This record gives sequence, C-alpha cells and structure tokens, in this order.
Amino acid sequence: VVDRGVARAHRGLQAAIKRYAGPETKVVVVPGGEKVKNQPRHLKQILRAINEAGLCRHSYVVAVGGGALLDVAGYAAATAHRGIRLVRIPTTVLAQDDSGVGVKNGVNAFGKKNYLGTFAPPYAVINDFGFLGTLSDRDWRSGISEAVKVALIKDAALFDFLERNAGLLAQRNQDALEQVIRRCAALHCAHIACNGDPFELGSSRPLDFGHWAAHKLEQLTNYHLRHGEAVAIGIALDSTYSYLSGWLPETDWQRVVDLLQRLGLRLYVPELGRELAHPEDAKCVLRGLTEFREHLGGRLTIMMLNAIGQPFEVHEMDTARVARSIEILKQLQENRRPAALTENGYVEPERVA
Amino acid sequence: VVDRGVARAHRGLQAAIKRYAGPETKVVVVPGGEKVKNQPRHLKQILRAINEAGLCRHSYVVAVGGGALLDVAGYAAATAHRGIRLVRIPTTVLAQDDSGVGVKNGVNAFGKKNYLGTFAPPYAVINDFGFLGTLSDRDWRSGISEAVKVALIKDAALFDFLERNAGLLAQRNQDALEQVIRRCAALHCAHIACNGDPFELGSSRPLDFGHWAAHKLEQLTNYHLRHGEAVAIGIALDSTYSYLSGWLPETDWQRVVDLLQRLGLRLYVPELGRELAHPEDAKCVLRGLTEFREHLGGRLTIMMLNAIGQPFEVHEMDTARVARSIEILKQLQENRRPAALTENGYVEPERVA
Repeated sequence: VVDRGVARAHRGLQAAIKRYAGPETKVVVVPGGEKVKNQPRHLKQILRAINEAGLCRHSYVVAVGGGALLDVAGYAAATAHRGIRLVRIPTTVLAQDDSGVGVKNGVNAFGKKNYLGTFAPPYAVINDFGFLGTLSDRDWRSGISEAVKVALIKDAALFDFLERNAGLLAQRNQDALEQVIRRCAALHCAHIACNGDPFELGSSRPLDFGHWAAHKLEQLTNYHLRHGEAVAIGIALDSTYSYLSGWLPETDWQRVVDLLQRLGLRLYVPELGRELAHPEDAKCVLRGLTEFREHLGGRLTIMMLNAIGQPFEVHEMDTARVARSIEILKQLQENRRPAALTENGYVEPERVA
Repeated sequence: VVDRGVARAHRGLQAAIKRYAGPETKVVVVPGGEKVKNQPRHLKQILRAINEAGLCRHSYVVAVGGGALLDVAGYAAATAHRGIRLVRIPTTVLAQDDSGVGVKNGVNAFGKKNYLGTFAPPYAVINDFGFLGTLSDRDWRSGISEAVKVALIKDAALFDFLERNAGLLAQRNQDALEQVIRRCAALHCAHIACNGDPFELGSSRPLDFGHWAAHKLEQLTNYHLRHGEAVAIGIALDSTYSYLSGWLPETDWQRVVDLLQRLGLRLYVPELGRELAHPEDAKCVLRGLTEFREHLGGRLTIMMLNAIGQPFEVHEMDTARVARSIEILKQLQENRRPAALTENGYVEPERVA
C-alpha cells in the first residue's frame, strides 16, 4: 500500500517493489494525508485488495507512506482475517520519529480523529532515510515537533542536541535529522515496550504531551494544519501553561518557545484563540480536553512540565490560565513582548500547591 | 446491545436493564443471527450508539444475545476508541458453551465469514441460564454440537456424560444442559488461557475441529443451516474421515455418529454432496479447505481423531476419501446401511502410515 505522494516523488518505486517482492505482488496506491482517514472508501479499497490477493494471516501487508497512510493501511491489516502481518515503512519525518514506530492504527469517524482503530504491534518498522529528501519544507520541519515533544518528556540531552542543531535542522541537514530520528525511534520503542501499558488501559499517556490541543486544532483547521504543526502549538501551549502555573522555570519555558521558533514552527494560529469564553463550544480548542478524556477514558490526565525532561500529570486545567497562555503565544508569534509580562521579565507565576 | 429475538422473548428486559444500570443507559436492539454480521448497517448502528452515548475506553458495552450478535457488538466495542470494555451475556446454548466464552469477534465481508474482526478479551462473560428456556428446539439442540466437539478433542469423560444424558438433553432437560455448559465453558477458558496461542499466530486451531466444512456449509445453505447444525455435520465428516483413514477405531466412530443422531442433529444435507468432483468450485464443500487455510494462514492444519478425546493434526485431506465419507453420512442420514460397508461390519479402514 503506497502513499500517492510517495509514488509520485519516487517514480521507480512500484517497479522496484515488484522486482524485490515478486511480480505477483499487488501494489495499491492511495492518497496520503488526513483525508485518507476521513473517507471510508480508501479503507475499503485496501481491504478489497487484501481479499483479492488472497492474503492470509501469515502474509504481509507492507505500508509505505506518511503517518495517515500507515494508520489506515494498518487498520485494514489488523482487521482482515483478524490480523495480517504488517510491515511499516514510514516516509515522513513525523512518521519515522513518532507515529510509524508504534502499535496504533486508526481511521476517523463521526468527525473524531482515530475514532475507529486497534492496537496491533507491527511485524517490522523500516525507517528508510532515502525517502526524506523529497519531502516539502513543511513536512520536513513539522515532523521535528514530535522530537521536541519526546525530548521534553523523556530526554533533556536530546533537547540540548535539538537546540545546538536547530539551525542545521531548519536548513534540512540530513545528518542532523537522522540522529534525531534514531534517538526518537529508540525512545518510542522503549516507551511502548517498557512503560507497562502499551495498549493504554489506564488513563496516562505521556507521549501525548501537547496533543489534546493539537488534535482539536487539526480538526478546527479542517486539517489544513499538519499534525506536526499542530503539535508544535500544543507543546508551546502546555509549556506556557506549565510556566504560568509556577511549575516550569522561566528559562526552561523560554528555551522551549525559542527552539520551536528557530525550527520554523508557529506558536499560534487564529483557531487557537476562538470562543475561549465557551470552553464546551465545538469551535473552542478547550473542547479538545473533553474529547481527549473521552478518547482515552477514565479521569482527565494531561502531562505538564517541571523542567525540560521532567513531566508530571495533572487532572484538570484552569480555563482562564489556558486563555492567558494562548494570549502570550499570540503575542510571541507576532514578535511582540507579551502584554501580560512585566517590564523586568515575565509574569510572576501563580504558585500552585 | 440486545438481540431482537431476546428482546421479544423477554419483554421486561429493557426495563430491567435500565433499572439495574441506570435510566441514562442506552439500549440498542439489533437482529440476531448471521444476517447481523452480513449487513454493515447493523455494525454502524451500534458504533453510532456508542459515539452518541459518549462512551470512553473505561466505559462498558454489554452485549446480550446469540453468538452472531456478540460477534458484531464485540467488533464495534473493540474498534471504537481502539477498544471499549465489553461484557458478553450469551443467551443461546451455542454461545454459552462455545463462542461467547472467547476472545474473538467479527463480521462477514466479501462473502466470507468473519473476514473482518479482532482478538479482544472481554471484560467479563456472564452465562445466565435463565435465557435458555425460551429458545426454540432447533437452537437448543444445535448448540450441543459444540459440546460434542470439545468432548471429542479434550474430554472423553464429557463425551461419556453426553452419551448417558443424550435422551434428557434432547428432551430439553435444563439440569443436564447446565452441567454440559459449565464444563464446556471451563474447557474453553482453559484452552484460550493456557494453550499458548490465544490470538492464533500459528496454524493450529484445535477448537475448530469439524469447522472447515461447517463454515462452508453455512455459506452454501445461505445460512439456513444454524452454525451448530453445520458443526454437527462437520464433526460427523471429520470423524468418518478419521475412521476411514484407520486412525479412529470403528467403535469410537460409531459412538460419535450415534450420539449426534440421538441428540437430534443431522449428519447430512444435500449441499454437502454437491460438486465433489470439482474441489475448488465455489459450490463444493471441499473449497472450504482452501478458505479455512486462507483465514488461519500458513500451512493447512486440520484436527483428526485417534480416539474420543485424542485429536491430532493433519496437513492435507484426500479428496476421494472425503467424498466417500460424505456418501456414508448420506446413507446414515437416510437410515440405510452404508453401501460401502461390508456385511460383517464397516469397511476395512485404509491403513495410513
């Protein structure tokens, strides 16, 4: 199952697949991007191809593409015959450093991201750096936001590396990016294998730092915002909230927003500031908290930061403080000193017990 | 999610559910039987109800009905939010002694039984014997064939019990049936928990003794044959094949076909005898071998019997010997001495190395 964008950028790919895997190999090309998860006909197209090829549980579906394509092809493979072996070949920065190296699949339904899906460990994941050269600048950059996320919750040394190499990374230096991807993929694998809850039976999901707002922003922008772009804003938001709450030191907070900006990632889009007075309005980003809790189940659990590399959990968020965080991000994005900050520095954080 | 047949037979059930679980509990009634697995709108109806009720991963879907309803409701619960907790309340003999006490769910697609599904251990299974009294004679009897199956592959003492109580069971003695169900459910649970391959990654599936033909017969009869009725024929077929192959002693074989007949189960339907000269024809039961292998994957693996309670695996079946087995079943069903048998007894089995 090949992502249409990948098939176009790598014209010889389909012939190379048949040379490697045999002429009888069936190649299905479907669009990439979130739309493939929104339209059920793409899922059906993949399932039909699996059936027509007579694949059994000991056969292999190989998915080549970005995170969205891997999600839908993985869902088809996980449900056909109750599970055909899946090999994932992620082709974007985002998929290679984050979602591709995981056990989840899914499609969107009822207007909700990943409403239908399963947990299904892949047979293998192959990160082929050869695919990265043809990515657009937007896809290159936005994938790095998941690296910032995993550094913030797991690896201060990776954060240092990202800071030292932010210029190179923004200029598409492949060596620097490969080092980042290797480290992120290793952290991701270790987390799933060793965190004790690979299938998310509990309510804690550390790898979803910044994601409650990101998922909602993707939906609010009709998926014009890339997942990685939305994650950058979500990271900035929860880092700012952590700072305003008195948990994250000012210098650490400053490093986070500076790094995101040096990587060419936005901290704010207009959809973030809408309807903040109505937290349960479907157009308000705060509604994302309810949807995030409903998807994972149980008690609302959100990661916050005590320092770079030191996350902790909270179970509620103060609506007014989220609104102030958003106002600060808006001013930073407009290259203005946030009005809420004092002359001598940033606002005095609220001390929270 | 309540089986329409159950809702009709137990008029107070929906009110009782709301009294027990709270007035806000959403009750969805869908048809039972194989058609609920053939028509995607029933799956969608259940998913829509799960979404509208705002269920999260820590919520519960409770499915009350026969095996087909449990399969489709279980598939919806397993895929919504990547898995909502499922409580199964099987209401038929077949579901209480076999499929309900398991980890599989599924719907039919591309004309194939259970083409789409997952392995998802339920949160609980509750066998309430109170549902058995309103079953039709056909549903009562046909469910016992799975008990015969599990006895043949796992428990000679259970087979003895079934023989001693065949008259009572055929006359709907509930005490005898409850003992059978308790033993089968325990064997089923133990098998899944302890056999080392609960999610069927290998090619062996002992609980599917007799099922390659049964699945195909259900399809060939447009599901007019109940699953349990088809399983009885599949058991008779593979037992006869075991006998003709020289594996199963004549007395054991005789006991198997006698027990099935005393329980009121048929050994033959016309669809079993069609197109035997064309094993890969879609209308021939032998095509079921190919479909069985494709569903499970890997090498064809079929259970045969060395004795009652002593199964073993084979990896091919002789087409001509299957045809002879079918001819013998046809004659037994017509209460005739099988023509292929000698005057002094049954045919001399072929000795197989």
